[in-house]
Amino acid sequence: MRYSDDDLARFNAGPLYRTLGIRLLSCADGGARSVLTPTAEVCWPEAGQPHGGILFTVLDTTMAFAAASNADRIVGCATVDCSVQYPSPARSGPFECRVTTLRCTGRTAFVRGELVDAAGVPVALGQGTFRLFPPR
Amino acid sequence: MRYSDDDLARFNAGPLYRTLGIRLLSCADGGARSVLTPTAEVCWPEAGQPHGGILFTVLDTTMAFAAASNADRIVGCATVDCSVQYPSPARSGPFECRVTTLRCTGRTAFVRGELVDAAGVPVALGQGTFRLFPPR
Amino acid sequence: MRYSDDDLARFNAGPLYRTLGIRLLSCADGGARSVLTPTAEVCWPEAGQPHGGILFTVLDTTMAFAAASNADRIVGCATVDCSVQYPSPARSGPFECRVTTLRCTGRTAFVRGELVDAAGVPVALGQGTFRLFPPR
Amino acid sequence: MRYSDDDLARFNAGPLYRTLGIRLLSCADGGARSVLTPTAEVCWPEAGQPHGGILFTVLDTTMAFAAASNADRIVGCATVDCSVQYPSPARSGPFECRVTTLRCTGRTAFVRGELVDAAGVPVALGQGTFRLFPPR
Repeated sequence: MRYSDDDLARFNAGPLYRTLGIRLLSCADGGARSVLTPTAEVCWPEAGQPHGGILFTVLDTTMAFAAASNADRIVGCATVDCSVQYPSPARSGPFECRVTTLRCTGRTAFVRGELVDAAGVPVALGQGTFRLFPPR
Repeated sequence: MRYSDDDLARFNAGPLYRTLGIRLLSCADGGARSVLTPTAEVCWPEAGQPHGGILFTVLDTTMAFAAASNADRIVGCATVDCSVQYPSPARSGPFECRVTTLRCTGRTAFVRGELVDAAGVPVALGQGTFRLFPPR
Repeated sequence: MRYSDDDLARFNAGPLYRTLGIRLLSCADGGARSVLTPTAEVCWPEAGQPHGGILFTVLDTTMAFAAASNADRIVGCATVDCSVQYPSPARSGPFECRVTTLRCTGRTAFVRGELVDAAGVPVALGQGTFRLFPPR
Repeated sequence: MRYSDDDLARFNAGPLYRTLGIRLLSCADGGARSVLTPTAEVCWPEAGQPHGGILFTVLDTTMAFAAASNADRIVGCATVDCSVQYPSPARSGPFECRVTTLRCTGRTAFVRGELVDAAGVPVALGQGTFRLFPPR
């Protein structure tokens, strides 16, 4: 899938991204980048510190776009499973997310992503498997 | 940690839980239960279907409370890492989450959780490692 | 797949199982059991203590048989991915492995397994995704 | 830990490595490399194709050495948990393994590794958490 700037703008205007503070920056050729500027609502239980599930959500959705960008044409993309590590507390955003595809075979993409804080320190590391659904 | 009904009510009134639609039902002796009645904001890109990252967040936060309930007294609990599988689309909520501790050794708890839809079908399965921080 | 006692005996006579000390005990209806009596060769770097990779191998192969037993007829079964936790040192075998299928949808099986020592203490916990290949 | 060539030679002469066909090539500053030339015994059920658990063992042990090399002085290193993906069948070895540390904080190291076949195609991808034990 090729995503135009208009596509990205439309995704970024969706309710989930605006509620959490996610913005997709780019997505092409198996890679994707996004940024999390967490809203106050998702910083809990520590003020100013996004919940680990929100960090996971950034990784997961950016990975899904990266995975989808490997295919010429698909009608959907689903996470099969994903592992996440939290090497450091996520205290100082915004948090940048970078994802790359390590292998895409037929309908399955294997991707990895990192989420780093404003100082470049990794706060979440992910490794996921995604299933691509071609048009019937 | 022992959590009173007042404690649970206070957690459930926090911003993250209300924004996503999470409610903690019980937490004691290494186990915890919660329910997700997803808000419209977190159902994306499919209406009525919570994003996978939100399902993960339910698992992760319920696991953290389950892990914390193993300790007599702690000042914090952090996810070290967590793996999640998505065996079925999450179409028909509310979604119930059940977590159990399989092993707690010193400051590390190993827990598992399942999130099932209204028909009892598993929509997310998690396995996580948590670090407990004792008072100094 | 239904596995007869003869099938299990044949698997147990294979080189991998004999080299590591694995014996498959049963496999039916999405569940499987096996036992590891580790050979001296795979107890390293601590004598008497099987390497973590060997514990993983027991989980993985037992999970694969459990996954395969969900299907009527397949020609193969492959691990897509698997997560393992090591809650305790594996000091006192033999180690028993029990696997159950939590969900099998079409060609994908989601399974979990535990490996416990002679006292019933869990030494390895796994959660894996398996792909089943039907006959063409 | 700094490992001399003599140290590596001693590890490579251990029973596990010789039984499976593992050889540690280098280990320093949070990184490590190894190679798997699988013995016939561990190629099962497909001849010439090492079992997925053996691939995991290569990743896990190489990761453990990489993790240990972050510390000045330790008396042990243990896998807390590890996730592995299998993006391609492992048909044409030898298989080279490369591991890097993404973060090491106090006693916990977060590492990643890849195992590629003779053509450079990834056959196993790992992400693991390791615990370092300092001298008392």
